[in-house]
Amino acid sequence: MSPSTVRRQWEVASSSTAQNTHNPIRSIVENLRLEPNPEKPMIALSIGDPTVFGNLKPPVEVIDAVQECLTSFRYNGYAPSTGYQEARDAVAQYSSEGVTVNPQDVVLCSGCSCALDLCITVLANAGQNILVPRPGFSIYRTLAEGLGIQVKFYNLRPECGWEVDTAHLEEQIDASTAALVVNNPSNPCGSVYSRQHLQEILRVAQAKFVPIIADEIYEHMVFPGQTFHSLASVSEDVPILSCSGLTKRFLVPGWRMGWIIIHDRHGIFEESGVRVGLQRLSQRIIGSNTLIQGALAGILTRTPQKFFEDTVNTLQCHAKIAYEMLSMVKGLTPVMPSGAMYMMVCVNMAQFPEFQSELHFVEQMVTEESVFCLPSKCFDYPNYIRLVLTVPEEQLREACQRIADFCERHHSHSPNTNAHARI
Amino acid sequence: MSPSTVRRQWEVASSSTAQNTHNPIRSIVENLRLEPNPEKPMIALSIGDPTVFGNLKPPVEVIDAVQECLTSFRYNGYAPSTGYQEARDAVAQYSSEGVTVNPQDVVLCSGCSCALDLCITVLANAGQNILVPRPGFSIYRTLAEGLGIQVKFYNLRPECGWEVDTAHLEEQIDASTAALVVNNPSNPCGSVYSRQHLQEILRVAQAKFVPIIADEIYEHMVFPGQTFHSLASVSEDVPILSCSGLTKRFLVPGWRMGWIIIHDRHGIFEESGVRVGLQRLSQRIIGSNTLIQGALAGILTRTPQKFFEDTVNTLQCHAKIAYEMLSMVKGLTPVMPSGAMYMMVCVNMAQFPEFQSELHFVEQMVTEESVFCLPSKCFDYPNYIRLVLTVPEEQLREACQRIADFCERHHSHSPNTNAHARI
Ligand SMILES: Cc1ncc(COP(=O)(O)O)c(C=O)c1O
Ligand SMILES: Cc1ncc(COP(=O)(O)O)c(C=O)c1O
Repeated sequence: MSPSTVRRQWEVASSSTAQNTHNPIRSIVENLRLEPNPEKPMIALSIGDPTVFGNLKPPVEVIDAVQECLTSFRYNGYAPSTGYQEARDAVAQYSSEGVTVNPQDVVLCSGCSCALDLCITVLANAGQNILVPRPGFSIYRTLAEGLGIQVKFYNLRPECGWEVDTAHLEEQIDASTAALVVNNPSNPCGSVYSRQHLQEILRVAQAKFVPIIADEIYEHMVFPGQTFHSLASVSEDVPILSCSGLTKRFLVPGWRMGWIIIHDRHGIFEESGVRVGLQRLSQRIIGSNTLIQGALAGILTRTPQKFFEDTVNTLQCHAKIAYEMLSMVKGLTPVMPSGAMYMMVCVNMAQFPEFQSELHFVEQMVTEESVFCLPSKCFDYPNYIRLVLTVPEEQLREACQRIADFCERHHSHSPNTNAHARI
Repeated sequence: MSPSTVRRQWEVASSSTAQNTHNPIRSIVENLRLEPNPEKPMIALSIGDPTVFGNLKPPVEVIDAVQECLTSFRYNGYAPSTGYQEARDAVAQYSSEGVTVNPQDVVLCSGCSCALDLCITVLANAGQNILVPRPGFSIYRTLAEGLGIQVKFYNLRPECGWEVDTAHLEEQIDASTAALVVNNPSNPCGSVYSRQHLQEILRVAQAKFVPIIADEIYEHMVFPGQTFHSLASVSEDVPILSCSGLTKRFLVPGWRMGWIIIHDRHGIFEESGVRVGLQRLSQRIIGSNTLIQGALAGILTRTPQKFFEDTVNTLQCHAKIAYEMLSMVKGLTPVMPSGAMYMMVCVNMAQFPEFQSELHFVEQMVTEESVFCLPSKCFDYPNYIRLVLTVPEEQLREACQRIADFCERHHSHSPNTNAHARI
């Protein structure tokens, strides 16, 4: 150490990665003034954790599969960093719907977040950009911005079931665009894209030669009458990294079991080193819990169809209740979802002039009604609130009633609008 | 997209992070010609997974603790990204030996690898360097080089129980040094540092104002008569991030449960944003499996002392056997370990002139004797082989005997040296 470079005191600094990694939802929520009405029990319609209310539980077959692994003492050692062969076989088989997946195309990860982390990290360098939906889930920003990768937004169209505005998408693509993130079914929208719409998205990606990261963590969670198509099952030419996992459909978010499926088309991921890059990156943290890996084949094959049906029936039933109740409310326009576990509700801010934005609306609703919904700013979008549909029916009804009461009180044309709301 | 920037074909590339992330052990081993002698069953003394031979198993109390969580249905949801409060409480208590750890100083991670990843990522920017021991475990390079952080080596001194050459360490520190990694007990050396030696290391760090990442995944795995001191229990002024987990001591590497303990001294990590940076980074993959988190308090408090004693007694017994057998072998100089689960054995290459390096020596030993040890090149060090001590006793004896036979045959001064070995 040359004398000129000797430190004379502590100069510890946190890295730019640490400084640039942030969770927009957390920052926004932490800055809200959330003081529930002490006379009303709090109902949080904000938490994207389906297990939190205790009404939705993983199937007993899933618990049994893990229990068998646990007591076998066979799944305590290290697995390969991309996962046990048998677990990758099981995911390949589970995911071969309308498309053939080979086990070597599967990389097990610690949750879908980790899968997305690897996909973004392998495809983009600092200074490049990825395209993400607006409104969209904030983890893409958390992951990309931490790495110095810019996020550019493409618009979704609420009036068309939150389909991608493909003209806008196309405009956003530039020479530094490393990947396009498509989230279907969508958080926060609850939208489910038709095969035809997926083809339209693929056409843009193909025309501009942009590979896709398909966030399909809500795959198959579509309401009766709807069909889920994986993007890979529709793509002929566009290389796709699909991300999914047990988190939502099997109601075990805490277990951190996700995966990437490499849908290479024309060997593009192979040649470019993306495939081997994912393997390399998987060695950083050496994969996911081996007990769950060991149980994966059992989980994916033994879970009864009825379990899945019960879940989506419940979600649809709740969506209908919320839609019906909130459709009647002046100033609100709910958008009926087709899948996932959320509903977006438009707040016509012009009709609630006392609130500067949906943030303020949300705060005041907590203050008066002890009902908390995420403001759409959390999804980089204005004037909506997002409801989770996993709350028990009674609480959901109660919450919707309170939302209705709140809107009734604050609506500018309502005869009940109280004095200070007029300001 | 301006016409000049339109892509006319696929130009997918893997990122520099992906390209620079590599596991040196894997690259070296993959390039070895490993063709075991078909007449002798293979004995792999190479794998740092204590569970792989089936002789060492986690205690039943640990299995029971997980089972309770599994059947309670209470640990399926998301935990906070730094871990459940009760799990962090348990780690804080477990780690408060000679130093007080508060639960808010604990960040649960997906294995110790993930803990190290977060620590390196939070402290260093691309272009800076971290200091790591030579010989040392290769994950530091895998993690740092992937991020464009340079690795600089400081020497260990085999003749002094693999203590740090503190003069060399001091020389290596420069103005771009973001952190010093200290691994105690050590992989691959099996060394355990005295309190006094830890003080010497701390003096250098303090004089140069370099924070420390203490990799203590082998904490408490020291042979009878030895004492483990955590670096944090000795440090008064140097801020330390300690990394550990269940992996080795509880014999569950696949479970991916590790943690960071923030030992802030004089608020340096607080002020510099390192503490909040770790929290932010933990949101990238949202922590470790919740079943194990739920079981953590039980695991850390209910595991009987006898279990730990049995493990280290076995390891010491194996170390003694290997040491005794290999000490007798001309051309080999084993270094008796004091802890962890490895032994380094010096191969006096001058006495085996037919081999260009220990790599070649290792290859030929597989060819003739079906015994595989890692060459020390895997640890950025020449002329040693590393034995794991977790193999069952009988296999260990057999392996050592074969190593002796092999050396006997190839030693330049041995009367049995066969003709082609003379070349
Ligand atoms: C769209 C979307 N992608 C990814 C994730 C992350 O899933 P995981 O919990 O498996 O990391 C979520 C979780 O809410 C999500 O909504
Ligand atoms: C010194 C050292 N640090 C860290 C690790 C990684 O531990 P984990 O499996 O908990 O990620 C190992 C594993 O062998 C190790 O030897």
